[in-house]
This record gives sequence, structure tokens and C-alpha cells, in this order.
Amino acid sequence: MADTTGKRRRGGGRAGNAARRGGDVIEQMPWRMIENIDPPIEPLTPEGVEAIHDCAMRILEEIGITFLNDEALEILREAGCRVEGANVRMGREFVMEMVAKAPSSFTITPRNPAREITMGGRTMLFGNVSSPPNYWDMELGRKVPGTREQCANLLKLTQYFNCIHFAGGYPVEPVDIHASVRHLDVLYDKLTLTDKVMHAYSLGRERVEDVMEMVRIAGGMTDEEFESRPHMYTNINSTSPLKHDEPMIDGCLRLVRRGQAVVVTPFTLAGAMAPVTMAGAVAQSIAEALCAIALFQYVRPGCPCGIGTFTSNVDMKSGAPAFGTPEYMRATQMTGQLARFYGLPMRSSGVCAANVPDGQAMWETSNSLWAAVQSGTNMVYHAAGWLEGGLIASPEKFIMDCEVLQQIQRYMEPEITATTPDHTAFDAINSVGDSGHFFGIQHTQDRYTSAFYQPFLSDWKNYEGWEAAGAVWTPERAHHLFKQIIASFEPPEMDIAIRDELAAFVERRKAEGGAPTDF
Amino acid sequence: MADTTGKRRRGGGRAGNAARRGGDVIEQMPWRMIENIDPPIEPLTPEGVEAIHDCAMRILEEIGITFLNDEALEILREAGCRVEGANVRMGREFVMEMVAKAPSSFTITPRNPAREITMGGRTMLFGNVSSPPNYWDMELGRKVPGTREQCANLLKLTQYFNCIHFAGGYPVEPVDIHASVRHLDVLYDKLTLTDKVMHAYSLGRERVEDVMEMVRIAGGMTDEEFESRPHMYTNINSTSPLKHDEPMIDGCLRLVRRGQAVVVTPFTLAGAMAPVTMAGAVAQSIAEALCAIALFQYVRPGCPCGIGTFTSNVDMKSGAPAFGTPEYMRATQMTGQLARFYGLPMRSSGVCAANVPDGQAMWETSNSLWAAVQSGTNMVYHAAGWLEGGLIASPEKFIMDCEVLQQIQRYMEPEITATTPDHTAFDAINSVGDSGHFFGIQHTQDRYTSAFYQPFLSDWKNYEGWEAAGAVWTPERAHHLFKQIIASFEPPEMDIAIRDELAAFVERRKAEGGAPTDF
Repeated sequence: MADTTGKRRRGGGRAGNAARRGGDVIEQMPWRMIENIDPPIEPLTPEGVEAIHDCAMRILEEIGITFLNDEALEILREAGCRVEGANVRMGREFVMEMVAKAPSSFTITPRNPAREITMGGRTMLFGNVSSPPNYWDMELGRKVPGTREQCANLLKLTQYFNCIHFAGGYPVEPVDIHASVRHLDVLYDKLTLTDKVMHAYSLGRERVEDVMEMVRIAGGMTDEEFESRPHMYTNINSTSPLKHDEPMIDGCLRLVRRGQAVVVTPFTLAGAMAPVTMAGAVAQSIAEALCAIALFQYVRPGCPCGIGTFTSNVDMKSGAPAFGTPEYMRATQMTGQLARFYGLPMRSSGVCAANVPDGQAMWETSNSLWAAVQSGTNMVYHAAGWLEGGLIASPEKFIMDCEVLQQIQRYMEPEITATTPDHTAFDAINSVGDSGHFFGIQHTQDRYTSAFYQPFLSDWKNYEGWEAAGAVWTPERAHHLFKQIIASFEPPEMDIAIRDELAAFVERRKAEGGAPTDF
Repeated sequence: MADTTGKRRRGGGRAGNAARRGGDVIEQMPWRMIENIDPPIEPLTPEGVEAIHDCAMRILEEIGITFLNDEALEILREAGCRVEGANVRMGREFVMEMVAKAPSSFTITPRNPAREITMGGRTMLFGNVSSPPNYWDMELGRKVPGTREQCANLLKLTQYFNCIHFAGGYPVEPVDIHASVRHLDVLYDKLTLTDKVMHAYSLGRERVEDVMEMVRIAGGMTDEEFESRPHMYTNINSTSPLKHDEPMIDGCLRLVRRGQAVVVTPFTLAGAMAPVTMAGAVAQSIAEALCAIALFQYVRPGCPCGIGTFTSNVDMKSGAPAFGTPEYMRATQMTGQLARFYGLPMRSSGVCAANVPDGQAMWETSNSLWAAVQSGTNMVYHAAGWLEGGLIASPEKFIMDCEVLQQIQRYMEPEITATTPDHTAFDAINSVGDSGHFFGIQHTQDRYTSAFYQPFLSDWKNYEGWEAAGAVWTPERAHHLFKQIIASFEPPEMDIAIRDELAAFVERRKAEGGAPTDF
């Protein structure tokens, strides 16, 4: 523990330097993992938790899950599961025995150890939007397929904002790069533009192995050093209902065998790929997640695994997915209760259905972010930049979300609710009496620079001041900031030899043809 | 209790009819008081509660509060308080003895008994924005002083939306009506355009008496019937720091003597009218509220009183008030703990600093509304329509807020997290297996009309669908709805004789010159 603290302090310096380099555009809060000091909201009684758990176990025991992965089928047969074709049924004793091997908390250490994150306990972490095929910004004013440049700019935001703790998948899919080599170019960009924790898509052997190799190179590690602890992670979705695909399971197996972290996130939209009732959608999600985690724990006992939730509901009029709804919030809270029941770190998301960064986008996103807080979520995917149910990435939305994320970070500071005599401030109240003002007194002067959250995007001027400053609405203000941040961005330090080695690796793998594109 | 239920059921029919009359524009959730089923977030330890309580008591004992009201001074002297000039010091035994007389819950019954509200316990109620001097809408595109027509339109929204449980103060100050008769015209509009619980400003004897008389007339009540139970309320602010003004206290005394409800809401902006530390700002707010409540309980033991909070912080760079900040959220939660400590129903607000109904407006408002939920607030003032720190009322913001309020209403339905076998839905999951879809199955068909929250303003179409529908951002959609709702609005039923009596009263009081305008 002393060692970790020491590292964090040293690292804090490095992270602090990185922040200062781009720190001219805005004043932001320091890099810090958030400790969620609020008790979780738990809508389920113990009997309710047991009912969902029992349903999940019955799904695994009586219906079974389809594993479209021969290796997994062989392993699970060996483990004593009942395998018929691709259908695997597993007893609850086996599932619970395996899940109990998973750590309740683990760290992931990227190339800059100051950016190490802890997944578990009361720690709360935010990551950038991941995987939208499309991009929208105020200047374009329309939805377009993603490009490498847009992806790189969003990676710069990922690095720039201290409230973003880890890098998710591609913040927008750069479809101008051929799919066979896309992972090579984007990982090169990711590893050089950010020093935060990296993600690999589980989309086939070559991609996963390439990304692990690039993360190893970027960290200047030997294979042994890389495998000694988690330095990166993957996140997989099941193909709901009740199915795991070949490449997803393959990628996870490759990662866990090399000591890296995996997160399993079923996507159970109630009324579409899951029951219309939220308890059913959660139970199905739990079953889909636990069977994969059980597999990984059998293969590598104690390997770092997180359980994800992506349970929401559809619009029953159109079938369109909805996000940040009351049902989404409760499903996230329920999943939090189950995650604690199983002792697994949890992932949820910052999401909305809105198409542009307007009021709807922010009430839906606020709902989902507060649900993350309320559920005890450890890892918040898509916490900045998501629009249109994940089909659009937007830099304005990214920056707007960061303002909300910083407020959550500040909200979790115990200092706000401290009640020492200095805080209850009888003497200050006595000194001002019934006709003075607190602005000028010493008690205020001693604290005014740090007493309150300072926004970087919110405009707190009165209407006339706001009008005099151009009457700029929030997304336009965010757009201006986006331009300034990109213009002044400086990438984090990287040893030139390492950069060259990364570039050479990319060249070689491109020359070899990259990865198959049949996924 | 059986009686209340019966009344509510009968009343529900009447409220339901009113909703249906305007129900052609949107489908909305039914009129229903919300039961807050979430446990409150309590950032203070028991020692922290005690520390704030002790500071509040020391303020009352050692510093004292200025009562700029001779009658109050006389009463408090008689009660044994130490009165020197206008400064009143009261011992904690007296304060706590008086506060203990206040009911922890009470009802307020407007002219339509179906709209009766309960203030206390776990009940959560929403009211319209109150008292902005200015108005903004998308069509005007600028801030203008309020008019009677704008005020009436916002009152129509107050009546139209089932999620608005009570009428606050004037939803915009109609400055085109002379101040001496403004209360007469607006109360006539309020009483004829809505049948929800009424508010009176405590701005001088004549206004308070006029409003009580008009509420009595509108309810077809005798004086005795009016005084038999609460039919309306007032909300007063202290003049922080540590002062109560003449008309505010006068108005409350008039109301409590006639059995009506009062809410005392200090406005303690940390760093301006209160200490820069939130515990100090809360302690000062508690002291300012409790001394007034103690007075009212001495005058009329057991009279219905609520404790309000309006503790927020200023922008330390400009001195401008900020709302919906992390500090605001924690102060609201802390006040909730103190309100429960004293056994008093609590009021907080739905607030923001934003000048237009954009993303910032909605994250700030969402923060404040979730803080209301987390604090166990009973009465949420300004829950719809507030902009610019309360200086602007906006119909678009009103409608956007109602979408959020409805989601909170839905969020509190225990059905979402039910875990009966029907809800965990093993059989449905079994019937679909690994390759089907849940949309068409009976389990879904039986529930799809009521399974999920249905928004009236959120656009859940994909980008292309949204674009094809005109690419309309949220505030413009709200503006269109506003026009439609006003165009089709039908006022609630009122006996023609009562309406004539109200009009005659207004005529007579206008002829008498209305009220003095020296406040």
C-alpha cells in the first residue's frame, strides 16, 4: 500500500505535468480516481436478489448458453459442464465456485504508471465513448462516417481531460482505414496520444495479439513483465439472447492467459433481446456474463474479470433502443446489487438516445451517470462523447459530459460536507451578524479559491453578460473549447526508441497484411 | 385513511377528466403524488448532524435573529425569549419544544379535492417556477419583462401537466399589471385556470387577506370551513444573514392563525449571505428557519410548517449565484438530514444558472432534481420552467423539465424492480432460446403498453429519422408543444356563481385601491 501511494505520488507528478502542458485552455480538476462515498441505491430486497440469481442459475442449468467457440466448448466439457453441440449447461455450484475465484478488485497499469487504475471496491472510473461508426460536430452539422483524424482528435480529448481515467475502444470507428490494418494505426495513435489504460477489441486472434504486443512495446516491457499484472483490458458483449461468439471468447482467453483484464457486458435490451420485464432482462444479462467469467476463471483462476451491464429498454412504439430511462437506471442499480452479491467489479455506461448535444442528451446522460453512481459502478464506459444510442461520437458532447463528470468527482469530495468548527463556522456567522456580507471576511478569503466547483464550460453569467459575450449556447461553447484544446494539444512523453519500435511493428504487420477482415 | 383513499379515488376521476380534456396534445402520466421509495443519501454522520444542529442553536442563543416585525417581537418577549431592540435570542429548549409541536406531515386541499396534496413522509411533490421577473421563449428569442398573458400561459402549463402537483408563486411576474392590484388579477387567473393548491405571497396584510378570501370563495367555503384545515400556503424567505422582514412574518402569522400552511426558506448563498463552507451555510439556514417556525408554533401550536432550503454557492470569480452544483446537492442532502432530525416536512427546488434551455440547463436542473430525490424533499419548488438563477421563466424549459419530472415519477414505481416469477421471466427466456426475439412473444405482448416510460418530448428516433422530421432540437420541440397545449387548453370546471363571486371580489377590491405598493 505504501508502495502504491509512493508510485501514485511520483506518478501524480507526471500526470500533473501532462495536464499542465495542455492546461492553458481550461482549468480542470486534477487526475484522481474517484472514491464513491455514497451508499448504493438498492431497489431489490435480499429475496429479490435471490430471485434474479436463481433465475440466472436456472438459465445456465436448464436452458444453457451457446458458445460459438470450439476451444471454449472443449474446456467447458473438460470442466464437467453438459455440452450438446454448441449448447453448454453448467450447474450453479460450478458457476459459483468459479466466480468466487475472481478478484473483487484489481489494478490495470498503463505505460505511465501514474495512470494506473483500480477496478473494484468503491473506486469509480470514467472512459471515453467507444465504437460509434459515425461522427458529428457543430462545424459539420451532420452525421458522417468516422475518420482517423476525428478518432485522433477524440483521443486527444481522452488524454487531455483528467476526469477521463481510461481509454475505451476507438472513440469513433475510422472507416477511412482498411479494416485489416485499422487496429494497427489506431493503436499507434492511441499509444502515442494517450498514456492511459488501453483497450483491445476481441475481434480475432491477430488483432488481439497485435494490441497486446503494442501495449508491451509501449510500456518498454519484457513478455514476463507484461504478463506479471494487468496492463490493458478487453470488453466483450454476448450476442443476446444466450450466445457467445467465437472471436469475443477467443480474445478474452488470449488476454486472461497473459494476465490481462476482461469485462463481459451483455447487451440485453428489454423487449428485444431480453424479456420486457427488467428483472428478466437483468437475470438474462447476469447469466450471459457469469458463464463467460466462469470459463475464464476455470482457465486462469483468479484472473481479473469485470461484470458489465448494458440493460436498457426499447421504445415499444418503434423498437428503437432507449437510454438513460427510469428502467435503465433501475436495471443498473439492480445489476450493482448482483455484482456485489458475486463480488465482481462492475461496469456500466454514460448513454443517451439523443441525436445532438442538446437538453435531451444531457438529461438522459445525467440519468445514466447518476445511475452509475447509485449502482456502485466501478468503470463507466462511454462516459464522454456518446450520442444516438452509440452510433455517433461528438466532441461537443464529449466536452459537455466532462463538465458533468468533473461535478461528480467534486461531489465525492468529503470536504464539502465536513462539520468541524471551521466548517460550521459559528465565528464567521457571529462576525458578520445580521447586516454584513461574507465575501470579504477572512474565513471566506482563506477558502475561496477551492471552496466550490469551478466549471470550465458552464456559463454562470447573468443573461445580459451571456448575451454580451455572444449569446452562445452550450454546444457551441463546447465546440470552441474543442478547437482550442486540439490546437494546443501536446502528446504525453514517449521515449523516441519506443515510438520507433511501435512504428516499425506497425510497418511490419502491415507488410504482412494485417488481420483477416472476415469479422 | 380509508376516507382519504376514497376521496382520492373519487378525485382521481375528476383530475383524470381534467387531464383528458387537454390530453389530445400528449399522452402523459396520471396525476399521482410520488412516493419516494429510495433511501435518502446522508453525507453527515450523526455527529455531523449534531454539529450543525449545535451551531444553529448557538446562533439562536448567542447571536440572535433580527425580527423586523413588532408583533413578532412582542410575542417572542412574552414567550420568554431575550429581546433587545429587534434582536431576538432564544434558548434551544424553547426552540426544540416549539418545533416539536409542528406536524411531520399535513395535507393541503385546494378547491378540487382530487388535487389534495400531502406534505411530509415520503411524499414528493412538484410545483411550477415562481417569481421570475422576466420571460424568455424561442419565438421571442430574448429576455423580456413578464406580462399577464405569459403568466396565464405558464399557469395553463401548471394545470395541464399532471406531474405538477401544486401552483407556486406567479410563474412569471406580470409587470404589466399595477403592483397594487396584481395579486387580484393573477389570483383570479390562477384560481380559474388551475384547480391545484394555491400559494399567497406574504407581501403585506392586504395581499395575504385578499388571497385567503379568494381561495375561500373559489372553494365555496364558509370561513369556518376554510379555517378547519389547510387549503393554501405561503412560502417566505429570511433576509439572510439572520433577519426576518416585516411582511414575511406578518403573512405567515395571518395564515397560521387561519389554519393555513407556511414554508420558511432561507436563501443562504455560501460565500455571500452565508459562510463559504457548506456546513456553515446550512447551519445558518436552519437557524433562520427554525426561529420563525418556533414563533408560529408558539402562536398556533401544531400549525402546518415546512422547512425550506435554498443553500447554494456563488461563483467566487464573479459573485454570481450558482445552482445545481455539487455543493448545492450536498447542502440539500444535509438539510434533508436536519429536516428529519427536527421532524419537519422539507422543501427544495429545481434550479439552474443557465440562461437558455440547453444542455447546461438540463445538467444543472437534473442535479438539483436528483438532489431533491436524494434528500427526501417533500415539496420541490421551481420544478418546471426556471432559468437564469430564477430571473427568467421559460415555457420551453417548463416542458423539458416536465419530461424529467415524469421520469422521476416513473422511476419511483416499484413495478420496475419487481421480481416475481412473471418478472424474472424464466419461461419467456426459455421460450425464446438463443436465436429468437422477445418482441412478438406473449409475455411481451401482455405488457408492452405499460412496460416502459413513454416520453412525450424526448426524440428516440435514429439520426436519419430525426433529420427527416426536421432535425428539431429539444427546445424547439418543446416550443411546438407549448403552442399546441395553449391552443387546446381548457380550464378546469368552476361553478359560474363562484366565478362571478370571484370577479366581483376583484372588482370591489380594485375599486378600493388594491394593496399598498410600498413593499
